[in-house]
Amino acid sequence: MDIIRISKNAAKAARVLANLSASEKNKILEEMARSLLRDKNAIINANKKDLALAKKAKLSAALIDRLLLDEERIQDMAEGLINVVRLEDPVGTEIKSWDAPSGLKIHKVRVPIGVIAIIYESRPNVTSDCIGLCFKSGNSVILRGGSEALNSNIAIFKAIEQAIKSNNLPQGAVNLITTKDRKAIDILLKLNDYIDLVMPRGGEALINKVVKVSTIPVIKHYKGICHVYVDDYADLDMAEKICFNAKVQRPGVCNAMECMLVHHDVAPMFLPGMLKKFKETGVEIRGCPITKRIAKEKIKPVTERDFRTEYLDLILSVKVVNTINDAINHINIFGSHHSDAIITNDEKNAREFLNRVDSACVYVNASTRFTDGNQFGMGAEIGISTDKLHARGPMALEELTTYKYIIYGNGNIRT
Amino acid sequence: MDIIRISKNAAKAARVLANLSASEKNKILEEMARSLLRDKNAIINANKKDLALAKKAKLSAALIDRLLLDEERIQDMAEGLINVVRLEDPVGTEIKSWDAPSGLKIHKVRVPIGVIAIIYESRPNVTSDCIGLCFKSGNSVILRGGSEALNSNIAIFKAIEQAIKSNNLPQGAVNLITTKDRKAIDILLKLNDYIDLVMPRGGEALINKVVKVSTIPVIKHYKGICHVYVDDYADLDMAEKICFNAKVQRPGVCNAMECMLVHHDVAPMFLPGMLKKFKETGVEIRGCPITKRIAKEKIKPVTERDFRTEYLDLILSVKVVNTINDAINHINIFGSHHSDAIITNDEKNAREFLNRVDSACVYVNASTRFTDGNQFGMGAEIGISTDKLHARGPMALEELTTYKYIIYGNGNIRT
Repeated sequence: MDIIRISKNAAKAARVLANLSASEKNKILEEMARSLLRDKNAIINANKKDLALAKKAKLSAALIDRLLLDEERIQDMAEGLINVVRLEDPVGTEIKSWDAPSGLKIHKVRVPIGVIAIIYESRPNVTSDCIGLCFKSGNSVILRGGSEALNSNIAIFKAIEQAIKSNNLPQGAVNLITTKDRKAIDILLKLNDYIDLVMPRGGEALINKVVKVSTIPVIKHYKGICHVYVDDYADLDMAEKICFNAKVQRPGVCNAMECMLVHHDVAPMFLPGMLKKFKETGVEIRGCPITKRIAKEKIKPVTERDFRTEYLDLILSVKVVNTINDAINHINIFGSHHSDAIITNDEKNAREFLNRVDSACVYVNASTRFTDGNQFGMGAEIGISTDKLHARGPMALEELTTYKYIIYGNGNIRT
Repeated sequence: MDIIRISKNAAKAARVLANLSASEKNKILEEMARSLLRDKNAIINANKKDLALAKKAKLSAALIDRLLLDEERIQDMAEGLINVVRLEDPVGTEIKSWDAPSGLKIHKVRVPIGVIAIIYESRPNVTSDCIGLCFKSGNSVILRGGSEALNSNIAIFKAIEQAIKSNNLPQGAVNLITTKDRKAIDILLKLNDYIDLVMPRGGEALINKVVKVSTIPVIKHYKGICHVYVDDYADLDMAEKICFNAKVQRPGVCNAMECMLVHHDVAPMFLPGMLKKFKETGVEIRGCPITKRIAKEKIKPVTERDFRTEYLDLILSVKVVNTINDAINHINIFGSHHSDAIITNDEKNAREFLNRVDSACVYVNASTRFTDGNQFGMGAEIGISTDKLHARGPMALEELTTYKYIIYGNGNIRT
């Protein structure tokens, strides 16, 4: 596969996509959705091949479930594309405008980024989600999915590509890299002349590799080591509800709580009931020495390694802290700058936490589980950035754009 | 020199800087300015060492002039810091806020980026400029200047550092790397755990090296291959004035014109007078075959290599194009996505150019020389980004910030 040719064509196509109107893009997105539904049997058949290989390779039941596509899931993918139709097109929006001292009129206007490469390890529906969001924001996209979903991804891609072809758009607008050769990615990551952004979505090894090799700007969608800190001024009933929700409601996602911090003064009141509730739900607790003392039964000791681990499972680190300052420092040292919450009724402590915790999303009296493009009202998300540059937290259409300055003069020269 | 220790301390200091008020920061900026003036003799003496070494190394007169610090230039540096005092502090500004569907109140608020490393090859005044802008925006800064200015940079840094020390701020807030060992930079560029952004300001070799080695996000301040396109609907008198200004007013800077594109239909009217004017000012013309034919005398042929060159000198590439489309394609292929202008009275052509030229700043009927933080009304600039992510074009205080989401709940859990 000629990665360089694909990337060059993507860059050429990006210039065309950048100037499509919202209604032109919406019409094509609707066609993509119809095309997915029309090709559903082909997609399901391709998916069966992936499932057979996955079973042969003895992948876990959870992984196989993630891989599975049925009529309902294909319907969901099509609806995802229709959902993107409804979102406002950010391209061409004026961020601000002003008259410069020289008399020039300056307009700061949103434009597409250009070519976005996405490397992912997740479910096959990511393929259509990413195409929908990149296309609507006027960007060409180069996708590289996990090898275990290759047949499914090819079938989904082929369906969607028909809508590009039948509207005489350049084929480089959407691209799927199908070679299993890992060297292809090493080549791709050096093509900063054609590719403007690479987003790795997956495990730590993938992300570290991309950061190390890439000469293209990277926005990382890194792990979520999220904390809830139960302050000494917390409403303890509320704290119990929120901590339970943050850990248990969906433990396998990046915005679930991995570590609970409890102020020393409320620990004896709060922990026994909380730990009991977790135990009843099958949550394994790993606790600091004070937590261990308060717990009525034997629990595992928590290690520094635990504090750095995204369990994505029914496991929870628990630590009793002496002060809010200790809680903030713990989060800044061991967290992943994703989402962290304080439960408190004290305004000063809330402000302290919000200002000093260096994370994309900081909450007072709410579950970390709300960090999500849909929950934020963005209508969708392509991922959650744990980086600080360009975009932080949930990324949707606006975050897939950059800006340019459009400047009107009247013969102005600099003196 | 312990690069890792410096970077760790910078990260710690950043947490303190992030929570200083504007008035605290302004007071210290004023002290930095006073300190520079108080130390002016020490700075001038240190600079004399650099000048002596530069003469011994037979650096060009232009480079030696760039290096020179006298009382006036130190006064300018101090005034630069006072100018930053007057700029609005972006930290804590609310970008937007809204009620999410779940009832949460979400505030998108500007915060400092954290630790910014700047690697530069330019004049010693960059040292104080960068410290001023990073400090006002609440960021720690790690500076690495050119070795030819090392003594001057150390003296400037020592003066400024006094204001940090005497206000009991952590010393990690401002940092200067003084080792000449180039390996220090290789180590620094891998410290993405502590450094949030690296900005290389300098030649192509430096920038390519940083992009290749860095695991830290990079914003490139790359070369400016800027174009002016004289459309067939141009006011030719205006075009002559603007092209002359864009090339000649200050040829050694990144927003000067390096290539003039002229529509075929107006070339015979426009070029003879324009080329004569350039000739009288000592501008060397390198022209395409049609330009050569129209020119009354012998001129050098322009090559593809010329089109990719930032002359930073009184040299100009000239090319006659058949259509506006050819002009746009030429700019997108050979330009550096910095600043490009069209001279036209035709609205449709102007729109076409503005929409399709993929550069940070696109002008109608004005000189490219206006791409500058001060000219844009930003009050200062730390450089001009030729990248698309995070910041594009002139970068000032706002561009040295990122944002976080501050979210207020009332016991909200996700269902």
